[in-house]
Amino acid sequence: MSILAVGSVAFDTIATPSGRVEDMLGGSATYFSLAASYFTDVRIVAVVGDDFTADHERVLTACGVDTRGIQRARGKTFRWGGQYLDNLNEAKTDFTELNVFESFQPHIPAEYMDSLYLFLGNIHPSLQAAVRLEMDRVRLTGGDTMNFWITGSLKELTETLKLINVLLINDGEAKMLAGERSLPRAARKVLSMGPQALVIKHGEYGATIFFREGAFGIGSHPFRAPALPLEEVVDPTGAGDSFAGGFMGYIASQGQLNREVLKRALFYGGVMGSFAVERFGTERLQKLTRQKIDARFQVFRELTHLE
Amino acid sequence: MSILAVGSVAFDTIATPSGRVEDMLGGSATYFSLAASYFTDVRIVAVVGDDFTADHERVLTACGVDTRGIQRARGKTFRWGGQYLDNLNEAKTDFTELNVFESFQPHIPAEYMDSLYLFLGNIHPSLQAAVRLEMDRVRLTGGDTMNFWITGSLKELTETLKLINVLLINDGEAKMLAGERSLPRAARKVLSMGPQALVIKHGEYGATIFFREGAFGIGSHPFRAPALPLEEVVDPTGAGDSFAGGFMGYIASQGQLNREVLKRALFYGGVMGSFAVERFGTERLQKLTRQKIDARFQVFRELTHLE
Repeated sequence: MSILAVGSVAFDTIATPSGRVEDMLGGSATYFSLAASYFTDVRIVAVVGDDFTADHERVLTACGVDTRGIQRARGKTFRWGGQYLDNLNEAKTDFTELNVFESFQPHIPAEYMDSLYLFLGNIHPSLQAAVRLEMDRVRLTGGDTMNFWITGSLKELTETLKLINVLLINDGEAKMLAGERSLPRAARKVLSMGPQALVIKHGEYGATIFFREGAFGIGSHPFRAPALPLEEVVDPTGAGDSFAGGFMGYIASQGQLNREVLKRALFYGGVMGSFAVERFGTERLQKLTRQKIDARFQVFRELTHLE
Repeated sequence: MSILAVGSVAFDTIATPSGRVEDMLGGSATYFSLAASYFTDVRIVAVVGDDFTADHERVLTACGVDTRGIQRARGKTFRWGGQYLDNLNEAKTDFTELNVFESFQPHIPAEYMDSLYLFLGNIHPSLQAAVRLEMDRVRLTGGDTMNFWITGSLKELTETLKLINVLLINDGEAKMLAGERSLPRAARKVLSMGPQALVIKHGEYGATIFFREGAFGIGSHPFRAPALPLEEVVDPTGAGDSFAGGFMGYIASQGQLNREVLKRALFYGGVMGSFAVERFGTERLQKLTRQKIDARFQVFRELTHLE
């Protein structure tokens, strides 16, 4: 079933211990869409500038992503530059040029209005809310946010959280949002703000999903999926959005929504995140197959399951 | 089957966000022995001073630990003071008074010489090696070490690693010992130094066991056990030694040694670590039952296993 992704398309300049690349196609909606495309039909809404070429668009369409929602504006596409030093879990930002992204107002094409699943990438919470309210038929909304909105736009974010079914954030963001240093307590507090489930991403250590009491069937205890111990992390950029793409994509591909589906979705999130970081940018995500993805899913299972 | 633990007995003064305690019974051999005592017979070798009372000893004997190997020396018992601030994964040391521990020379009582399992707590690598070489009948040796020995006594440590079957260290120590920032590469390098298996502890994110190719049957891919997302970590002191106690204790309780036993042992390690941190010092470890332990083992399983 179709999933709509709203977020950023960007050109990234990235330095990691493995090398350096310039103006690589990236952005939250790009990583998300490519990762989700192996599971279900994906539609994208984002804004790009004059420098976004047909070749860039083909990266998405080659994976079957519907790009009719990509808005073209005068000027340059969003650009981000950053580097990962010894700690591959944390980027040091060199520059952020918002460019056309600064005045991004998502327009949902009429053909997208029947989307049943929605992912709200990391944009201003008020824009996230506006998109959600426009979409009548959505069954499940996933959303991302970041420290910048937690500290700067908490009021708007609080309203948006009431519209989000599954929030996907990292440890630091969860603790900051809740004002709690214990993860389970932070999770409970965030869940009381609206979402029925909260996915907390732990970088190289995987992710935990916390459920609101009674939200997805019996049992509200959390579930944890691992990350794969990787020989080499070439470029961590986009790992979180690729995780979200695998997670939401798998959910959208299933007819039903229950605890077991969400648990498997968490595994698929980890799988897509682990692929994403093996090459610079979206390179690895462009040339996968469902067979390779499911083979890695089995590796994740063997990594964690007792006989 | 009997396991011998060699390490420290200490009195700890600990401050955490949950409170402060003074001169609490602790030390690597204490935590290890109490945790392991729920699985198998445990014998302890350590040194204490005049301030170690019959009440202190009863903490160990009440759990069935054989304390005949506790050596009494003139002076004070090893004392450590530290605090955990916002980051409960890392202690800030306030003071270290080695006292009688400074000249600790482990003497293995004759009655202990038939021990089949051995755990070498975090003491000087040369002492670890001497103990191992003295024990003829040992089937499996587990060992711990720390940054202090990796930087200060690397040559001795390298020799000791040849005598250790399973090394248990944390992420930072593994990377430092191997001079590698990738965990799987660091693991391979450490395994080439001697151990057949390497347990890398990730604090609140659990632990991963890496196997040397062909060491414990078919398949050398790693296995990861979670940690429990805890409402409140009261005192992280001793979590690593309690982990080691659950891990080694479970192994010693099994007749055979294979990959599946080691995987379950990793879960039991996590279980005992999760109990240890719920109260100050060894309080929680003193009053457990195998039933409570196995119930939590099931919680760990549900936390990670797909249907």
